[in-house]
Amino acid sequence: MTATRPDLRDRAYSWHDPQLTAAAARDVDGLTFLRRMAAGEVPAPPITATLGFTVLEVDAGRVVFGLEPAEYHFNPIGSVHGGVIATLLGSAAGCAVHSTLPAGTAYTSLDLSVKFLRGLGTDSGPVRCEGLVVHRGNRTALAEARLHDGTGRLCAHATSSCMIFS
Amino acid sequence: MTATRPDLRDRAYSWHDPQLTAAAARDVDGLTFLRRMAAGEVPAPPITATLGFTVLEVDAGRVVFGLEPAEYHFNPIGSVHGGVIATLLGSAAGCAVHSTLPAGTAYTSLDLSVKFLRGLGTDSGPVRCEGLVVHRGNRTALAEARLHDGTGRLCAHATSSCMIFS
Amino acid sequence: MTATRPDLRDRAYSWHDPQLTAAAARDVDGLTFLRRMAAGEVPAPPITATLGFTVLEVDAGRVVFGLEPAEYHFNPIGSVHGGVIATLLGSAAGCAVHSTLPAGTAYTSLDLSVKFLRGLGTDSGPVRCEGLVVHRGNRTALAEARLHDGTGRLCAHATSSCMIFS
Amino acid sequence: MTATRPDLRDRAYSWHDPQLTAAAARDVDGLTFLRRMAAGEVPAPPITATLGFTVLEVDAGRVVFGLEPAEYHFNPIGSVHGGVIATLLGSAAGCAVHSTLPAGTAYTSLDLSVKFLRGLGTDSGPVRCEGLVVHRGNRTALAEARLHDGTGRLCAHATSSCMIFS
Repeated sequence: MTATRPDLRDRAYSWHDPQLTAAAARDVDGLTFLRRMAAGEVPAPPITATLGFTVLEVDAGRVVFGLEPAEYHFNPIGSVHGGVIATLLGSAAGCAVHSTLPAGTAYTSLDLSVKFLRGLGTDSGPVRCEGLVVHRGNRTALAEARLHDGTGRLCAHATSSCMIFS
Repeated sequence: MTATRPDLRDRAYSWHDPQLTAAAARDVDGLTFLRRMAAGEVPAPPITATLGFTVLEVDAGRVVFGLEPAEYHFNPIGSVHGGVIATLLGSAAGCAVHSTLPAGTAYTSLDLSVKFLRGLGTDSGPVRCEGLVVHRGNRTALAEARLHDGTGRLCAHATSSCMIFS
Repeated sequence: MTATRPDLRDRAYSWHDPQLTAAAARDVDGLTFLRRMAAGEVPAPPITATLGFTVLEVDAGRVVFGLEPAEYHFNPIGSVHGGVIATLLGSAAGCAVHSTLPAGTAYTSLDLSVKFLRGLGTDSGPVRCEGLVVHRGNRTALAEARLHDGTGRLCAHATSSCMIFS
Repeated sequence: MTATRPDLRDRAYSWHDPQLTAAAARDVDGLTFLRRMAAGEVPAPPITATLGFTVLEVDAGRVVFGLEPAEYHFNPIGSVHGGVIATLLGSAAGCAVHSTLPAGTAYTSLDLSVKFLRGLGTDSGPVRCEGLVVHRGNRTALAEARLHDGTGRLCAHATSSCMIFS
């Protein structure tokens, strides 16, 4: 596909059938699943291709995602849309909880509360977003996530509660 | 671009230089700007192309966005990623505030608090997300947004505070 | 009890054994329980005496509390402490959910997200705080609450998620 | 004052004219003001007497409050009302921000987002609630607070955004 007007930009990308990802998550604990995804042994879900973010680090109760801000993330005022920031924070928080789950357990996010502290432009990268488990109960868990720009400044913060299912 | 493996899918899309959008926002009030965008007279920002959502309705203090859920929105468990839902809710809430601003005024979102009530799959569309201004002060505004699936069920709710600048 | 210094103020109040309240809640549905409390047939819980607020109206999915701001609610800057506002909003939201529960069911608040829009002083009363159910699922419910001052201005807003137990 | 019925309990308490507290805050930086309050040289605001909590520790960007749970804090289900927990969390978060402010600067809380993780009873004390500044900008600040029971278990978490004024 070729843009015919100078103000038109295009992008093409691909992703894997998400059923492969879901199948790979089924019989293993969360930490193993996420580490396989970080290692490229399990395909990352479609949204990571759509928004261009990747799993960088996975530990028990801690997951880090990375993003290189680009124009296709932009809102009308020329910076990364808050929804992209929310997506990274929610992913980091949710996966931090996932990394604590034994095989045969699943979770769903109940909420996501984001604070936007500093805008992101194309010169802000590489962005790092770290999720940490704050509290892990039997039925619910609470995680927080912090997003830092390439110079280490805190740009956004979130908390997220998850419900855990057997 | 062609996928050579049956589990690989691809997507190509285009958007307009966001500086055109920003320039169109500069000298008009928010309601006029958003209505021009809804009418296609002003290009929508890149994030709307990346995630495939559109402005459906614009009134003073009320904006509705639409989305058709698709596989490229998916998280690892085969439903629309919460970040996509957050993006719609944040856009609807923020634009509802924007629609109340006179020319020469700008806003920035301070926060976004999302509650996920029901998951979205490819059979959930078309999704409608309505943002409403709850309180409009001089320096800050509060908006809420509700996202309903194609059968009218409430699937997510958010509130967002914005700071207003002259 | 008498204050001996002009800058010292005192207050005395009483409440009922909360086990009476808990017992009265046990075998009835939430709406009946809350209406008995509003009618004075069931003692209100201790916190309502401590902070001086009362149930004004009870419907299915909607509860209104009232408060007369006073100096004993104050923070260091001479207005009602945000925690008092949060208490009213959380009570109104939680009781709105409670009013939808059948006998033999209980709930617990998972979270409370408050936005402070306008301060309250001793001349702001009587304050009305209305809680409404936004979404009622089988395991969780979402409610919102709005607090208005005596002239009808919106002063605070909250959302709260509750978990429901059989 | 004497209760004449066995199910009636009463409590009497006193506080200082809050204008004394406000005057003491005026010409000093936040850290000095809060340390004077912790040392008893400046009267604590009325709400601390009403709900029975005290400042335990004050550092730059960090404030700890303490509470001994009692029946007068109770909700209808026989545990400390979430509003009391919200009050402590909001105070700790707000005062942590206050402790970073130079003389002649004031702040107001824009929001408070609380997660309730574990209930508190009369055997849960002494409760400690620590507020920490997460981000300190020129016009806004973000703080978080964590409340632990007497055995060190995390019982509640909050974030709060504040607006800063010169």
